[in-house]
Amino acid sequence: MELLKQKILEEGYFLSESILKVDSFLNHQLQPEIIDSIGKEFASRFAGEEINKILTIEASGIAVALAAAQEMKVPLVFAKKKKSVTLQEPVYQAKVYSFTRQEEVSITVSHNYLNSDDKVLIIDDFLAMGAAAAGLVEITRQAGAHLAGIGIVIEKAFQPGGDELRKQGIRVEALARIQGLSKGQVVFAE
Amino acid sequence: MELLKQKILEEGYFLSESILKVDSFLNHQLQPEIIDSIGKEFASRFAGEEINKILTIEASGIAVALAAAQEMKVPLVFAKKKKSVTLQEPVYQAKVYSFTRQEEVSITVSHNYLNSDDKVLIIDDFLAMGAAAAGLVEITRQAGAHLAGIGIVIEKAFQPGGDELRKQGIRVEALARIQGLSKGQVVFAE
Repeated sequence: MELLKQKILEEGYFLSESILKVDSFLNHQLQPEIIDSIGKEFASRFAGEEINKILTIEASGIAVALAAAQEMKVPLVFAKKKKSVTLQEPVYQAKVYSFTRQEEVSITVSHNYLNSDDKVLIIDDFLAMGAAAAGLVEITRQAGAHLAGIGIVIEKAFQPGGDELRKQGIRVEALARIQGLSKGQVVFAE
Repeated sequence: MELLKQKILEEGYFLSESILKVDSFLNHQLQPEIIDSIGKEFASRFAGEEINKILTIEASGIAVALAAAQEMKVPLVFAKKKKSVTLQEPVYQAKVYSFTRQEEVSITVSHNYLNSDDKVLIIDDFLAMGAAAAGLVEITRQAGAHLAGIGIVIEKAFQPGGDELRKQGIRVEALARIQGLSKGQVVFAE
């Protein structure tokens, strides 16, 4: 997705060899135009899949998943990262290790909002080690739902998450795939 | 906002005398039609205020704040609830006690995305004790930004947060104000 790649080149920067910051439009500040374009691109790539539900994880996946849900006119469910005292009904649950935060969290989705009739598109902002996506895949399986695929805004192609998911036969669409850094500049895969 | 009140009556329920659950469309599953309507209503109520930035807090404020940002065509900044290892630049910071989660968290906003030129609309999903809103007001003040007002989806009018903010001269617009429960049914204020 050219608009996204351009945005990454203009506003993204590497904090270290593995941490790309895109806080100006995706992870801390959100720019509606680019978020809307991302939603439309996901809808276009997964058109014809009869998706009836989008699944993401709080917090920074919510915006892009909502943009896709608006475009596809389907509800969006976001997995919660911590079992709240107000979430007392039966839940699907998976463990996710966050390399960014260096901690393991439980993610949960209520049985009320995901079941075996659903055709699910998982959406997230980043894919690196693949821990969050794997947790959402696990929850989709627990629900007995059909997994149509995974839509990712930015894949760090130099980390193994995406390839591991593809090896399982899962369709993974990343709107920008980053190969790495060369002389301080972001280099895209392909 | 009639559509929202109707939705609350149809799908909301009280888990206890003070905890209203609206997970089916606002806090766990998001229904794009109602989220879009909420965004339009905020834009309409604050039209003419020359707002150039929306401020919210992760996670469940993001969706409704994005819908308002899309309608008003301004960027949205969401305060982060925990200082991430990847957030290393100077930040505005406030302490927020979550009565739902029964813990205090630090919320932070980078200096990069809020400053004294900004005219800010704070948006959040719920207003009860007002702790999160007060934290966002504090951050707006630290930035020296102009606070145009606060837009809330559901105010629990039987808790003091809204009145305390209004006493400070802050414009608070709540799309649905709940007075309490009567015979198991939600009763709206006014």
